[in-house]
Amino acid sequence: MPQGKPSVVPDDGLTTRQRRNRPLVVVHTGIGKGKSTAAFGLALRAWNQGWPIGVFQFVKSAKWRVGEERALRVLGNSGEGGSVVWHKMGEGWSWVQRGLESSEEAAREGWEQVKRDLAAETYRLYVLDEFAYPMHWGWVDTDEVVSVLSDRPGAQHVVITGRNAPQKLVDAADLVTDMSKVKHPMDVGQKGQRGIEW
Amino acid sequence: MPQGKPSVVPDDGLTTRQRRNRPLVVVHTGIGKGKSTAAFGLALRAWNQGWPIGVFQFVKSAKWRVGEERALRVLGNSGEGGSVVWHKMGEGWSWVQRGLESSEEAAREGWEQVKRDLAAETYRLYVLDEFAYPMHWGWVDTDEVVSVLSDRPGAQHVVITGRNAPQKLVDAADLVTDMSKVKHPMDVGQKGQRGIEW
Repeated sequence: MPQGKPSVVPDDGLTTRQRRNRPLVVVHTGIGKGKSTAAFGLALRAWNQGWPIGVFQFVKSAKWRVGEERALRVLGNSGEGGSVVWHKMGEGWSWVQRGLESSEEAAREGWEQVKRDLAAETYRLYVLDEFAYPMHWGWVDTDEVVSVLSDRPGAQHVVITGRNAPQKLVDAADLVTDMSKVKHPMDVGQKGQRGIEW
Repeated sequence: MPQGKPSVVPDDGLTTRQRRNRPLVVVHTGIGKGKSTAAFGLALRAWNQGWPIGVFQFVKSAKWRVGEERALRVLGNSGEGGSVVWHKMGEGWSWVQRGLESSEEAAREGWEQVKRDLAAETYRLYVLDEFAYPMHWGWVDTDEVVSVLSDRPGAQHVVITGRNAPQKLVDAADLVTDMSKVKHPMDVGQKGQRGIEW
């Protein structure tokens, strides 16, 4: 139950209004559940504000996120709230015509598109789902990501999910939550199940 | 990127199918962001499965969750996916005709309705948003909650959010994530803002 009251009032010369509307880089990391679900929960708030939302799903599995994708597509097409564009790496990015040689190349192509969209201010909220992995694996240069995010124009919020978020990204982010696993059904042999895992 | 592979295979005499479909008690606790947003993200998956969803919002503030509520109402009324019933303590529970004397009484009334719905198997997913607080404050008896959840019939999933989830609830839950705060904009004087906090 956050009360919206800052614990300190900064001496930054900004008005409350300016401070309120500062665009955020949000990171959901850690080994627990909830990193992506919380990102899509945030997307519901953005949708309610009427914001254009861009989802970039940096995962190859077709099974995960089907619920979120369908829900956000229905919301985006409802005539209420904001619009939703959903980009999936798993099926090959829609804007890439040629075959991609590897997941590494696909991740880089995804990031290139994010950069173009940030420069064009295409969306107001970006969900870069599982994007921590390509940075962690060195496929996408974290320094470049930090630099592009720092210099992005306008009021674009960016949410990045995934385990092992690089420390440089954490340092540069405004809001970072570590989803810590206390207990997980798979630890006691439970299988993943529909409605919960996807 | 969970792979759906359990780390151990239990000697419980259950088939994989039975083990896959075991209903869960999920707890999102900790002081970081993402507890409720992740619960509503889970609700998108439940909606996609066509499940009836019951949300019980155990908070008094009218401002929070407006985005999630509107989105879930649009989804529930879309003619696709599952249904959504949204109960708000802040406006007085809809089934309570008389005035409620206190937040404590309101929280107890909410829990009584959850018990009735669990007994009747009204929903397939219950989002008990901020329900950790009334347990933590002793307004609702944690032992009773644990007992009712353990004995609930059918295949009803229950997600409980809020800081300070009682240890007994954590012990009884199947899946527990602690949302740990690494960094929050309010720490550096940033105000809460629309699209992010609500």
